[in-house]
Amino acid sequence: MRIYFTFEPRPDLREPLLAQFPQVDFIFENGLSNEELEKADVLVTYGEDLTADTIQYATKLKWIFVASAGIEKMPAQAIMERGILVSNVRGIHKTPMAESMLAHILAIKRAVPWIYEQQKTREWSKKARQTELRDSTALILGPGAIGSEVGRLLQAFGVTTVGCNRSGKEAPYMDKMVSFTQLTEALPNADIVISVLPKTQETTHLLKEEHFAAMKSSTIFMNFGRGNLVDEKVLIQAIQAEEIGYAVLDVFEEEPLSSDHPLWTLPNVVVSPHISSHSSRYVERSLEIFKPSLTKWLKGETDLENVVDLSRGY
Amino acid sequence: MRIYFTFEPRPDLREPLLAQFPQVDFIFENGLSNEELEKADVLVTYGEDLTADTIQYATKLKWIFVASAGIEKMPAQAIMERGILVSNVRGIHKTPMAESMLAHILAIKRAVPWIYEQQKTREWSKKARQTELRDSTALILGPGAIGSEVGRLLQAFGVTTVGCNRSGKEAPYMDKMVSFTQLTEALPNADIVISVLPKTQETTHLLKEEHFAAMKSSTIFMNFGRGNLVDEKVLIQAIQAEEIGYAVLDVFEEEPLSSDHPLWTLPNVVVSPHISSHSSRYVERSLEIFKPSLTKWLKGETDLENVVDLSRGY
Repeated sequence: MRIYFTFEPRPDLREPLLAQFPQVDFIFENGLSNEELEKADVLVTYGEDLTADTIQYATKLKWIFVASAGIEKMPAQAIMERGILVSNVRGIHKTPMAESMLAHILAIKRAVPWIYEQQKTREWSKKARQTELRDSTALILGPGAIGSEVGRLLQAFGVTTVGCNRSGKEAPYMDKMVSFTQLTEALPNADIVISVLPKTQETTHLLKEEHFAAMKSSTIFMNFGRGNLVDEKVLIQAIQAEEIGYAVLDVFEEEPLSSDHPLWTLPNVVVSPHISSHSSRYVERSLEIFKPSLTKWLKGETDLENVVDLSRGY
Repeated sequence: MRIYFTFEPRPDLREPLLAQFPQVDFIFENGLSNEELEKADVLVTYGEDLTADTIQYATKLKWIFVASAGIEKMPAQAIMERGILVSNVRGIHKTPMAESMLAHILAIKRAVPWIYEQQKTREWSKKARQTELRDSTALILGPGAIGSEVGRLLQAFGVTTVGCNRSGKEAPYMDKMVSFTQLTEALPNADIVISVLPKTQETTHLLKEEHFAAMKSSTIFMNFGRGNLVDEKVLIQAIQAEEIGYAVLDVFEEEPLSSDHPLWTLPNVVVSPHISSHSSRYVERSLEIFKPSLTKWLKGETDLENVVDLSRGY
């Protein structure tokens, strides 16, 4: 059994793995080579290095463990044709992402950007415009692992959470649920609109002019899912027309965002360079999901955690 | 019955008060005049306008309602000598203050100051140094109404809370309690040290060189209580020696902080100009405490909410 990592875990994380699975040949490389891919039974990757071409070399490959939640850069068709099982670390991002989202929301509510700028002037002033998060309403597009974790934290702050998904079916830590088709009616009550939706055909340009027009002019709009959610021209127009109060964006239609993109400099826009899921504990947590899956795999079991349906895209 | 407000609530808050208590003569002024004080049965004040001299005019005064939690600017001796009952809005600050504290903690953990600065350069970079709040330990000096609210929120983020007060007696939302005398032993385990202690003789310079030396070099130290807690020379020395990671300060030995004070410009220091308790809902909440107390008072009852013992100072 040969397991090929296309990234290199820190020694303190690698050693327990080697010790726990002495029967396995682990290969750790920083990047993907077709040579190693050819020999690998299992591939562990962040999911951004495989292409439809390189996958042709993976003649022995039976399982791909993606140490990421987004799988849209994977050559889905080629992988499905070869009958390779794919599992990922869905849910691993929930702690750092939910903490980042709360950081941005609370910073805006409690005038933290103003405090930072005011400090630079060394002038004591109490003219901060502060509001409270308590008693707000948040609409959460995509109340899955990450969305529910944000919901849980928001509820602790006394926020009413409204989840929104395709079906309108119940989700954890949501006081109420609506379906995509009920979005326009739900938006006027939301003080915060958060998307953590994955990239699928259905979510592409899900938010349109009419949705931003329906939001409160004080709304904090946050896209922490994927950049396909909204045509950036529509978003920029909504910001410029002051149809919303703030936009906090961790994802964009095209990443990296080019240096002349208008979003960098629009007022009340925060550009987070797709780092909300980053955490010093990322690889540690990935391996915590990988190890029990590998134990099962070695016994011939295939009912692993977080098996991905590539045809659905998540 | 004549009730004298030395501040002016907004019309939408004032009118329901007048309607609920038609038998009372309300006087609303922006500031304190000895003339009005002389005629008042009840005084409603932010607690910063009374002096030992002016209180001599208050010959009819039986009750002072302080729409603030800090009462250290009140002429305690003169008020006690006259047997005037004092009650305040203890606890009213807990929501905005706890939200502000979480805003600052999460901003530091999730690299929000870096994100803001990076955005100004319009350069896409993922080199943020982010950590997680989850699984941290917070030491909370003064786990009263505000400290417990911070504790409650921190626990929702998976933080272990250690309360610290004079007696070490149990407090809500604290996983563990220690007394002031056990402080030095508790500090090396704390990732976050928060003080919300009031100003008393006992809390003056409670934190000394040895306490900062005992903290982790990554500790986020937050003073949201009163500036008397630590000699600022000691604090500055601890920051410069990198004995602590960050200092977030809402209170200072002398306020306003003079423009040439070194705290404005030290790295990893956030100066919040004593605004963490501010909220657009402040007066609304004060009146929510005042109204039931006034109802009792009019019936001749004196067991009001938040009666203050001026001899203790809180």
